[in-house]
Amino acid sequence: MTTTDVHSTHQEREREVTEKVLASFADTPDPRLREVMGSLVEHLHAFVRDVRLTEAEWERAIGFLKAVGDITDENRQEFILLSDVLGASMLTVAVNAPDEPSATEATVFGPFFVEDAPLVERGGDIANGATGVPCYVEGTVRDVHGRPVPGARIEVWECDDEGFYDVQHDDDRRYGRAHLFSGEDGAYDFWCVEPVPYPIPHDGPVGELLAATGRSPMRAPHLHFMVSAPGHHTLITHIFVAGGEHLDDDAVFGVKESLILDFDRQPAGSAPRGREVGEPWSRTRFDIVLAEEARA
Amino acid sequence: MTTTDVHSTHQEREREVTEKVLASFADTPDPRLREVMGSLVEHLHAFVRDVRLTEAEWERAIGFLKAVGDITDENRQEFILLSDVLGASMLTVAVNAPDEPSATEATVFGPFFVEDAPLVERGGDIANGATGVPCYVEGTVRDVHGRPVPGARIEVWECDDEGFYDVQHDDDRRYGRAHLFSGEDGAYDFWCVEPVPYPIPHDGPVGELLAATGRSPMRAPHLHFMVSAPGHHTLITHIFVAGGEHLDDDAVFGVKESLILDFDRQPAGSAPRGREVGEPWSRTRFDIVLAEEARA
Repeated sequence: MTTTDVHSTHQEREREVTEKVLASFADTPDPRLREVMGSLVEHLHAFVRDVRLTEAEWERAIGFLKAVGDITDENRQEFILLSDVLGASMLTVAVNAPDEPSATEATVFGPFFVEDAPLVERGGDIANGATGVPCYVEGTVRDVHGRPVPGARIEVWECDDEGFYDVQHDDDRRYGRAHLFSGEDGAYDFWCVEPVPYPIPHDGPVGELLAATGRSPMRAPHLHFMVSAPGHHTLITHIFVAGGEHLDDDAVFGVKESLILDFDRQPAGSAPRGREVGEPWSRTRFDIVLAEEARA
Repeated sequence: MTTTDVHSTHQEREREVTEKVLASFADTPDPRLREVMGSLVEHLHAFVRDVRLTEAEWERAIGFLKAVGDITDENRQEFILLSDVLGASMLTVAVNAPDEPSATEATVFGPFFVEDAPLVERGGDIANGATGVPCYVEGTVRDVHGRPVPGARIEVWECDDEGFYDVQHDDDRRYGRAHLFSGEDGAYDFWCVEPVPYPIPHDGPVGELLAATGRSPMRAPHLHFMVSAPGHHTLITHIFVAGGEHLDDDAVFGVKESLILDFDRQPAGSAPRGREVGEPWSRTRFDIVLAEEARA
């Protein structure tokens, strides 16, 4: 048998495995699940074949996934971090973006959203004890025709100036997150703290992966938004601070030009909503445009 | 903007994400890790794009992986099961098979091997309390030139006749596993119990996946072998029982024609190694051929 024959047999045997696995999913009752599993098998197998994955590497991959599972709990979502640093989260956002160039762009959800954030009145303070430079955010929520969207639910969340979200502490403190609603004219405003750069949690296997591949765990400074209103596509996004660090090497690929806003530093003194601020503070404006909900 | 334009922009934005992620791995110091991560990103992203993964499906995938992590511990290796039922384990075996048609074929490792299996003398009993039909296995270990391989380390492991491996119990009992060594003439033999069909553990997320896709969790009856000797490629394989159930729909795609052997039933009475067996027993012969170790 010539070398070519052996290699051909090798390829045939490899393809035979893939064909068997694809056939095993052929009777999946749900057609969408059948499609997803078929594509997953094709691409997973193509990866194994293309890199000629060794058995030692397979064992390492299994050990890596086990370690990701071991560190994961309700507050530490290491599988989301893994998806984020591999760009799978951002690509999913891109795939699902409405075909609507005038709508505000979306970005990654991240692992730090929680369902039970408190309600604040318009003009209220979402910081709730989070330390940092006071920051005033105002804007409107409109549809793609420029009409105000009243009563839009606006969830905002952020870390403190040490780079920690509330859920990263071992206790159940809550800070730097709230929800509010846009007014009849679509307007909203709130106080928060100015976003700072921070590392994604990197004391686990995802952090080891970043270190081994020479990548930074840092994220560009940002404030999270999730904006929803009946009849509209829910927008999950951030705003980024112009001039901030890591806009070019954000660990989760979340930065988009259109989401980088000026945060203007203001002198201590009188500030919106009747505040007297005893230190320099900053302000920005974020006008949100929601796409229409896709029809089924 | 026409629909075509919008779609084109959409595709460009998606490709842009992938390019950014690939670029982020460009400085990986280890060239092999760089290659593996690059290929992983390409194939993972192609999957997300091809199926147009929705955000709800992404969340479900994250939840699935978390559930796989939650059930995993040292004894319950759910990520190995996942790799097995997706055929990734068997494909890795195929990719790493020596280009040596005369060598014994390999198959999946499975999640039930443990390092500390006891030593038995040649002709000894590996059942060690495992219930089942007594079964005598004999054979030789040879190289591809037909020369005996003395002192080969032969690890064998199997489930009992209720379909459970020792490690599936909550205590630390050990049965159905041992290691022994081939003699000067390459020969080996041992007593065990005849393999039976059994389900892979299917009370977890992998079981749910099999159920949702209409697949059986059953494995064809088999006995695990791992055979190693200096200068030779370590062989990880099974032998399967001819005529056994599930040879055609083994849950982990492990069956190969060349590994299906006759297990001949024998009447009660005198048996090898001076045994008097008070019930019908079975015997089989498995002659093993080890490929040479690949040179670096």
